[in-house]
Amino acid sequence: MGQDEQFSEDKLRINLRKRIDSKTKPPGSLGMLEDLALKMGLILQTDRPCIVNPQILVFAADHGVTEEGVSAFPSEVTVQMVLNFLNGGAAINVFCAQHKIGLGVVNAGVKSPIESASGLINRPVAYGTKNFCRESAMSLQQLDDAMNLGASLVLERYNQDCNVIGFGEMGIGNTTSAAALMSFYLNLAPKDCVGRGTGVDDEGLKRKERVISKALELHGSKTDPKAILAAVGGFEIASIAGAMLKAKELGMVILVDGFIASAASLSACMLERGVKENMIFCHVSAERAHRLLLNKLDVKPVLDLELRLGEGTGAAVAFPLLQSASLFLEQMASFESAGVSDAL
Amino acid sequence: MGQDEQFSEDKLRINLRKRIDSKTKPPGSLGMLEDLALKMGLILQTDRPCIVNPQILVFAADHGVTEEGVSAFPSEVTVQMVLNFLNGGAAINVFCAQHKIGLGVVNAGVKSPIESASGLINRPVAYGTKNFCRESAMSLQQLDDAMNLGASLVLERYNQDCNVIGFGEMGIGNTTSAAALMSFYLNLAPKDCVGRGTGVDDEGLKRKERVISKALELHGSKTDPKAILAAVGGFEIASIAGAMLKAKELGMVILVDGFIASAASLSACMLERGVKENMIFCHVSAERAHRLLLNKLDVKPVLDLELRLGEGTGAAVAFPLLQSASLFLEQMASFESAGVSDAL
Repeated sequence: MGQDEQFSEDKLRINLRKRIDSKTKPPGSLGMLEDLALKMGLILQTDRPCIVNPQILVFAADHGVTEEGVSAFPSEVTVQMVLNFLNGGAAINVFCAQHKIGLGVVNAGVKSPIESASGLINRPVAYGTKNFCRESAMSLQQLDDAMNLGASLVLERYNQDCNVIGFGEMGIGNTTSAAALMSFYLNLAPKDCVGRGTGVDDEGLKRKERVISKALELHGSKTDPKAILAAVGGFEIASIAGAMLKAKELGMVILVDGFIASAASLSACMLERGVKENMIFCHVSAERAHRLLLNKLDVKPVLDLELRLGEGTGAAVAFPLLQSASLFLEQMASFESAGVSDAL
Repeated sequence: MGQDEQFSEDKLRINLRKRIDSKTKPPGSLGMLEDLALKMGLILQTDRPCIVNPQILVFAADHGVTEEGVSAFPSEVTVQMVLNFLNGGAAINVFCAQHKIGLGVVNAGVKSPIESASGLINRPVAYGTKNFCRESAMSLQQLDDAMNLGASLVLERYNQDCNVIGFGEMGIGNTTSAAALMSFYLNLAPKDCVGRGTGVDDEGLKRKERVISKALELHGSKTDPKAILAAVGGFEIASIAGAMLKAKELGMVILVDGFIASAASLSACMLERGVKENMIFCHVSAERAHRLLLNKLDVKPVLDLELRLGEGTGAAVAFPLLQSASLFLEQMASFESAGVSDAL
């Protein structure tokens, strides 16, 4: 950031703080809603941040590592859930409809071909990743394809005036991929990065830990963030990382969902640190490692509801709080206009 | 509860759990939203709980104890804020409009007479309470009047099909009254019950503590919950307690806001323990003592956003999460209907 940019950012920050504090309430009394209003203003570069055409994109893909028995559900569930999204029967459908958030469903690489269906963005990079215990999950070319897929869909939505975008995922096995990314990027022991995902038992948890240890043995010499993402990531995770980088470039507000979306955030941050400035971390998941991941990212989640569903559901249910932040700043009276006395 | 009632409650609980677990998501993965769905179902006595005509009532009143210098704002602000509510300029107006929650503004006893204004429920019990450091805040007759005021307004709304009702408050000095109630009912040291309210400094905090110690000396021999509420309560707090008891009697869902509303909840629970079953504690406030109060009530708040505004704002911003809970139960597909495989 140049000196001029720093000056204008400081000025905007002061203006936003002044507007927030002029409202008829004790200073600071709207807590995190004030922080959100400030953050949205800084991202959208205005002291009157308004949410326009909010969108959530759900990326689905399959994971070769499911061969290792790391999930309580079979891989087939990924495509079944894609069809459920298209039919409007999943949780993310309900919450997006509730809050008038546009929903896009993307096949980024599920295991079996899906026939084109109404509403499906059907652009699989490949039919699932490879088992990262044995080889790289994807090639560097596939990584670029996945990241470009995410970026192009964000650009489309930006061109439809969308300024707030969230990302969800569906992919049986993807908590294992997310845990591996966390372990690689943050140099953490596998046991600190695994959790029960959709509900594995103690034995399944140990299996996930062993799987990540194996991946560390096989790919541990890699240090380039892109190489790591290709080695142990997933198509949906890479797509989200690419989407986030594009959203940052376009000055959009990025809604981060749970553990897997946060692993995508971490990947994006490893590729370009500044992207975090545009991110709002919507919730902390019940998936054990998520809290540690958020701590390492030095961010505070909006909600703590013990959700662990993914699909973008945490972003969707946090969305009305962002709206509240924008609306109080837009609509509340000031001490002056309402004739209310200031503090003594 | 008789044996038959217990049996039918158990049956309803099982049905609700079954419906929740039939939805296309790993069991438990919607975390607290599942708990809220279950709780609303049990309160409304149905396995398809739907929110109808949700309402928030904001009760305003003044406190004689402000003579002791316990607030950062002058008492005049209470009536100024009432006018702000009526003009639609306060935070609670914004959040109720956002979520289509009906808002009622009640003068339960502000210091100076308010001319009847459009939209105001103008039924002051008296012009502010007395200073509870010197005498009882109100008479037992006034306590009954306040509680009946709250109860009658709840009944009116129930008769308009409302089944979810929240309560907010506005009253300069009322964190001190709430802290006193907490100290009396829970036998806690004044220092554990006070906080900075709308923003008092260290000296103000010590003053609040001394004020409660004085009240304990003067009224400490009282053990009857009603006598305690009359001695150190406020008209808005007593109205809310009466309102909550009526809402429980009518089988409504009660949304509890922040510290002062929780002190009213505590008062209601001291009068009739079962009322807690109908309460959803919407948030934990930044007001220091609130977390302890919720722990003592053995309840878990939905949100933790460091709000400390009152007015019912915490209840209003938590409301969409209740809606989400009701909507996922109503609208999500089941594993069976969507053809999605269950866990392995």
